[in-house]
Amino acid sequence: MASHRYCVIMCGGVGSRFWPYSRENRPKQFLDFFGTGRSLLQMSYDRILPLVPKENIVVVTNAKYASLIREQLPDIDERNILLEPARRNTAPCIAWAAYHISAIDPEASMIVTPSDHLITSEGEFQDCVMRGFDFVENHDALLTLGIKPVRPETGYGYIQIGKEEEPGILKVKTFTEKPNLELAKVFLDSGEFFWNAGIFIWKASSIIDALHRYDSDLMVHFDSGKDYFGTPQENEFIEENFASCPANSIDYAVMEKADNVYVECTSFGWNDLGTWSALYDQSPKRENDNVAGDTPLLSYESSGNIFAVNSDKLIVVHGLHDYIVADTGDVLLVCPKSEEQRIKQMVYDVNVSFGDKYL
Amino acid sequence: MASHRYCVIMCGGVGSRFWPYSRENRPKQFLDFFGTGRSLLQMSYDRILPLVPKENIVVVTNAKYASLIREQLPDIDERNILLEPARRNTAPCIAWAAYHISAIDPEASMIVTPSDHLITSEGEFQDCVMRGFDFVENHDALLTLGIKPVRPETGYGYIQIGKEEEPGILKVKTFTEKPNLELAKVFLDSGEFFWNAGIFIWKASSIIDALHRYDSDLMVHFDSGKDYFGTPQENEFIEENFASCPANSIDYAVMEKADNVYVECTSFGWNDLGTWSALYDQSPKRENDNVAGDTPLLSYESSGNIFAVNSDKLIVVHGLHDYIVADTGDVLLVCPKSEEQRIKQMVYDVNVSFGDKYL
Repeated sequence: MASHRYCVIMCGGVGSRFWPYSRENRPKQFLDFFGTGRSLLQMSYDRILPLVPKENIVVVTNAKYASLIREQLPDIDERNILLEPARRNTAPCIAWAAYHISAIDPEASMIVTPSDHLITSEGEFQDCVMRGFDFVENHDALLTLGIKPVRPETGYGYIQIGKEEEPGILKVKTFTEKPNLELAKVFLDSGEFFWNAGIFIWKASSIIDALHRYDSDLMVHFDSGKDYFGTPQENEFIEENFASCPANSIDYAVMEKADNVYVECTSFGWNDLGTWSALYDQSPKRENDNVAGDTPLLSYESSGNIFAVNSDKLIVVHGLHDYIVADTGDVLLVCPKSEEQRIKQMVYDVNVSFGDKYL
Repeated sequence: MASHRYCVIMCGGVGSRFWPYSRENRPKQFLDFFGTGRSLLQMSYDRILPLVPKENIVVVTNAKYASLIREQLPDIDERNILLEPARRNTAPCIAWAAYHISAIDPEASMIVTPSDHLITSEGEFQDCVMRGFDFVENHDALLTLGIKPVRPETGYGYIQIGKEEEPGILKVKTFTEKPNLELAKVFLDSGEFFWNAGIFIWKASSIIDALHRYDSDLMVHFDSGKDYFGTPQENEFIEENFASCPANSIDYAVMEKADNVYVECTSFGWNDLGTWSALYDQSPKRENDNVAGDTPLLSYESSGNIFAVNSDKLIVVHGLHDYIVADTGDVLLVCPKSEEQRIKQMVYDVNVSFGDKYL
């Protein structure tokens, strides 16, 4: 049975919200965020390895990160690294991976997971994924993982649950956009809403069917190459056709439209590490609630800061509260945590003023 | 006439107020503070070179900075580098230099100058020094330079002027300690007070006489070696005796006590660069009154900061006002300008916590 189970790790993000710590040539998923010696990508791989045979793990990434993948995941077979010639969001990525896998194994089921999230209770995650595989193998279902919310988070999308299909697996009633704080509190109190973790489990054939039904504009691009998947011509076909796919998210293309969408409700520790503040919240605190990893730090009248500094640089700080201080050798960023949504604009300005030297 | 004129550049300071930019192994005077390609010491040397023959310029410094002196002032003869085995403030430094010079040239007159101040109008400085030499060569006088104050500065000592002896040169009535702001304003308005720049001109014989009269505790240490100055035994004598001299400033030892003390009143641009704020005031401002030299900088809602960053590192800063940000590769200091008097304590704490690694 296990040999029909596959994993797709999506690994093409640019992580610009974590600039300058995350860089265009080494984005977030390739960084050792927690000083554990393993990058977020490697942690994602390690987590899935007990569930799926190594040779069934597929990584989809941008072509420019090929060498980083080979460096960080040396055990992955070259044929399991899918290199996108262009960034087109998750729908084309998943369509390709599903066709690729189903050409190899028409009976395949697959979990699709981001490479840059944090999951803290791996045992619970693994149990959840196994139950999920069992479910989709017996139903034509598109399953998404929903995390029981523990705070009124405004940075995540939510899933409203419907009727229970079997213990812990329910029909999805609606997907919601990121709520404002008031609404997020209502969601939290209702018990009916779960965080949308962006982790999916389904049979390859189920998602290919659903994509045909709900995003035919995308699938015309893939259907013309149906015969090439799983053959030596696959890469050439992708090289010629992938960039013309319309960019779209799998949520928008399929999940919000299909009627066979289910959510497996779970409560493992999860954080999408989408923001500096999220990283701050997840990180161990030192004196005065400063986060600085193992960096030598002397702080005076300073609290709530997050210092992301390479190497064993000494930080001495006075009178600084709730700031991000990121120092990468060639860039120093000092910015209040409350203003971090402006970092994308700053990165844009840096590009305008200095070209790509600091990106 | 010019050949009896000497210059003593005092160059032994540690500059801990500018830590981490100024370091124990390369203090302030050895740094290219203004990105001109010349250190403060080199600027001091360049300034004096038109006034005094090169072979008459003597540098007094701590033994540990010998190689820095040779590197930065390669034209200085080895015999003109006086290496103090210990830090004993300005009185022992000046006593040694005066004995050293007077052994070579009993008719010598000399200017004594710090190596770590900024002087912006060199022509005016040079005219002033020439008038000063003329004066002390014709009087048994201890002459100090007084700068016409341009603001109620509380970081400097002041000199109150007395009777005019000749145009621009007056008897000193009193030396004052650093005043509070109220008093500094009174000083400024009165027109009777000048900044004490710590630059002195006198005959070598005059200061030796005065040191004997007013600081005999110090001079016993030097008199025992009288016969060695100007001979190959001088360094050995200093090595054995200098450290036993009591530490004392020349102001306290002589200037505040002697009755032949004169001030030459001048108004060249001068700053002792004693504080980050002083450096900030003297530095060209960029957008929003930030100081950053030529460092690439993008600032958002940030003003009045001083960034001292080595190399061509990019600084991106949001919501920071009136801070010092000093980044030296191995140390990052972030501190409000208004708290800079605490940097000495921070340096002490760094030493306690991490040893001398970051000093």
